[in-house]
Amino acid sequence: MEEKATEISTIGEFGLIDRLTRDFPLRNKSSLKGVGDDCAVMEYKDTEVLVSTDLLVEGIHFDLTYVPLKHLGYKAAVVNFSDIYAMNGHPRQITVSLAISKRFTVEHMEELYSGIRLACDIYGVDLVGGDTTSSRSGLIISVTAIGDAPAGNIAYRSGAKDTDLICVSGDLGAAYMGLQLLEREKVASAGQKDFVPQFSGKEYLIERQLKPEARRDVIENLAKEGIVPTSMMDISDGLSSELLHICKASDCGCRVYEDRIPIDYQTAVMAEELNMNLVTAAMNGGEDYELLFTVPLHAHEAIRKIPGVHVIGHITKPSIGAALITRDGAEIPIRAQGWNHMTPD
Amino acid sequence: MEEKATEISTIGEFGLIDRLTRDFPLRNKSSLKGVGDDCAVMEYKDTEVLVSTDLLVEGIHFDLTYVPLKHLGYKAAVVNFSDIYAMNGHPRQITVSLAISKRFTVEHMEELYSGIRLACDIYGVDLVGGDTTSSRSGLIISVTAIGDAPAGNIAYRSGAKDTDLICVSGDLGAAYMGLQLLEREKVASAGQKDFVPQFSGKEYLIERQLKPEARRDVIENLAKEGIVPTSMMDISDGLSSELLHICKASDCGCRVYEDRIPIDYQTAVMAEELNMNLVTAAMNGGEDYELLFTVPLHAHEAIRKIPGVHVIGHITKPSIGAALITRDGAEIPIRAQGWNHMTPD
Repeated sequence: MEEKATEISTIGEFGLIDRLTRDFPLRNKSSLKGVGDDCAVMEYKDTEVLVSTDLLVEGIHFDLTYVPLKHLGYKAAVVNFSDIYAMNGHPRQITVSLAISKRFTVEHMEELYSGIRLACDIYGVDLVGGDTTSSRSGLIISVTAIGDAPAGNIAYRSGAKDTDLICVSGDLGAAYMGLQLLEREKVASAGQKDFVPQFSGKEYLIERQLKPEARRDVIENLAKEGIVPTSMMDISDGLSSELLHICKASDCGCRVYEDRIPIDYQTAVMAEELNMNLVTAAMNGGEDYELLFTVPLHAHEAIRKIPGVHVIGHITKPSIGAALITRDGAEIPIRAQGWNHMTPD
Repeated sequence: MEEKATEISTIGEFGLIDRLTRDFPLRNKSSLKGVGDDCAVMEYKDTEVLVSTDLLVEGIHFDLTYVPLKHLGYKAAVVNFSDIYAMNGHPRQITVSLAISKRFTVEHMEELYSGIRLACDIYGVDLVGGDTTSSRSGLIISVTAIGDAPAGNIAYRSGAKDTDLICVSGDLGAAYMGLQLLEREKVASAGQKDFVPQFSGKEYLIERQLKPEARRDVIENLAKEGIVPTSMMDISDGLSSELLHICKASDCGCRVYEDRIPIDYQTAVMAEELNMNLVTAAMNGGEDYELLFTVPLHAHEAIRKIPGVHVIGHITKPSIGAALITRDGAEIPIRAQGWNHMTPD
């Protein structure tokens, strides 16, 4: 069966926008007007408004040789939702802007939007605007997420206090290992026509890289337990980098215990296979989109009730800095070695 | 004197963000938290929230051979403010994301941000967030503007009614002629070392192209006169295209009079020089960032008091379509021939 390939120029910018955005109903009461005017219009009378934005560039943030467009759309949306959850809020609206080079067809963009639509459906978010233009090289996606939280509930990076517990959700390093695996199979497949990549037993790693989820469940469970984290952020650049952000913003230090860092079995196997240090991968891997947050000591029992949340250490006075305590009791200063998109290799 | 050129990789992504955003104080009471967390935080209890977003790609939307980076930053901000004014609102916050290729230095980006800062100063807008990453080719700028308007004051595209007056601010076609002039001098300068471009007597055209302003004054004057336009948008793709948008969204037709279309003397001279049809340029030129709006007939006297606003025609029943009445009384159907970034030449 031949794939249909409609050149974007045949329907034009407005035709493309109409086609891509027609199946996005407005569900949230805060969404008053979506796509189709100079601005989207929203109403947030009882809550504060949260805005986060991300720019994704082909060849820097994603490689379409192994990332399906639907997954890319899903991930582009979800990682922005994650930024809103990381403030202890809920995403409500999203705008998506695209710059598209000539090698992409209308059907390609429909694929991308099917992923965005799925993410919006699952997380209850409305697509309310965007911009569509051409690019001379590759695909560029700019996403802005808008969300809300009651005034007293917002968790900044700056509120961590001495003796607070440091918590993370889920497990770390799997998305990074998924990327290593995809890159390895890409190299192995070069020039081969019917290449079948070897992902057996490593499906979790692939999923964490290609289809990450944002931790709405954790935000909901924190609310159920009546906990507002003293500080919070999502782990996109790696645990080390994010811990340093919290320490800097909150003027504190921290102690994190190697044996408490949650790591999935598949991540460990893959690190072994690739001869990489597992803890380094978990601390610096990036793209986990898990939540890192701090709570007062007295919240310990309540935190234990929340599925998938692990206490990995505690906040200290600023004078003693940020360090990882290894299994054998050594103290290693934490340094940021995470993703830095300004220095691509 | 040698220009200082600091490679971006020497200070990294976070270093660059710190440096670019440090001179942006928060001025608006709706801005609770700016750059430096997972999200910007805002409060809009008494007004509705407006959001607009734009993606600007080097080689498609701007040409750095003749656009200074400071002007580019200014324009990128102002054209987004224009979208907020076009809803009869006021811009309050902006986020700016950049993808930057290796040929740009820290100083280049400071130039760009000096333009963004100037725009924010003049229009009273706060920079509250963004994202900075690398690009494999050229510069990409994504701007999201956030603003507000009281609930009853928002002017959509969809409210124009039969017999309403059609108004535009300023004059049309000058930005397009400025672009033609810049392109002509770029071609003329090719390969010449000490080329001096010929802009004498055409400064207005250059300014309209390189440093457009958003019509805050018109929005303020409309409020003073107690007028809420029945429909409004800004003219970015050309008057023809925008008239058709309003007619479609409002289910109406229109009659616009050739002799009423405001055109500057320099625009006319340039059209003559380039042997282009002046009215076509004014109707389809694009990038004017003037306001196109409709008001009820009874507002005629009040509208006349607003400096720089011209009545160019009126809204009709949908059945007779959208047309331009020429000086000799002929009726020419209006068609969109404006900027279409999806089909670059």
